[in-house]
Amino acid sequence: MKIIDTHFRPSAVAGVRLFEVRHVLDEARGHLSVIDFQEVLPFQPQRCFITYSIPSNQTRGEHAHKECAQFLLSVSGHCHVKVDDGTRQEEFLLDRPTLGLYVPPWVWASEYRHSHDSALMVFASHPYDAGDYIRSYPEFVSQAARRRAKPSLHA
Amino acid sequence: MKIIDTHFRPSAVAGVRLFEVRHVLDEARGHLSVIDFQEVLPFQPQRCFITYSIPSNQTRGEHAHKECAQFLLSVSGHCHVKVDDGTRQEEFLLDRPTLGLYVPPWVWASEYRHSHDSALMVFASHPYDAGDYIRSYPEFVSQAARRRAKPSLHA
Repeated sequence: MKIIDTHFRPSAVAGVRLFEVRHVLDEARGHLSVIDFQEVLPFQPQRCFITYSIPSNQTRGEHAHKECAQFLLSVSGHCHVKVDDGTRQEEFLLDRPTLGLYVPPWVWASEYRHSHDSALMVFASHPYDAGDYIRSYPEFVSQAARRRAKPSLHA
Repeated sequence: MKIIDTHFRPSAVAGVRLFEVRHVLDEARGHLSVIDFQEVLPFQPQRCFITYSIPSNQTRGEHAHKECAQFLLSVSGHCHVKVDDGTRQEEFLLDRPTLGLYVPPWVWASEYRHSHDSALMVFASHPYDAGDYIRSYPEFVSQAARRRAKPSLHA
């Protein structure tokens, strides 16, 4: 039996972090991943959703949030996630139930190339609010640039 | 596209409920299950854990909690769950990411016959506390009987 503790590494994209969450590997009895919300997440989740049976040619996400932060973890199979803060991009492969991606607001995220058995779990800091979404990429880039230019307005 | 709203049915076992959580079935784009914690859960989750790669001959769980409530959802594959309040038992097959089982404290629960691709997600109402577990079944039956006999002591 092997216990690996939670640790993370930052990304080139503003505020994004890739977590290895605490997990217990036990070939005889089976494996266990643990997410202690207060310890791992910079927010208290209000909601969780799971996407599954996503055709491999489909892209999900393709939006940013103004306030809602998210934490993504692939519980089965794998998928790719691209994050983008308007100036820098980074791509991650989420391929195991121990690897979580924290995506803060004001980061554009897309999920794609899902394996046939992919199930992606997403924790969200806010209840669903259609008004919190930015669904146009040019609009996101433009608004993100304005935020960077005048950060004091968005403190 | 088909949207199914959250609904649940009670169990014969005290306080246990089986939920069909809100989900969107979309063959073209992929499916989505949503758990709005405040709406679905009788608690605010503090923690989540995922069990996976459980050999089919292994049984997990086999304990009750004194305070911690849990919500189980099979995100991949399937497993069986038996719940027991000390007098009545019921068995459930959790076989899809839309079917959640609420297990209150003072219910003994065991998970077994996991499929090779099973990933079971469990939300917990409390942080981990070794002192909250009852791991002896005879002790559980005895304590649960005392609680039923003198419910006023445990209000």
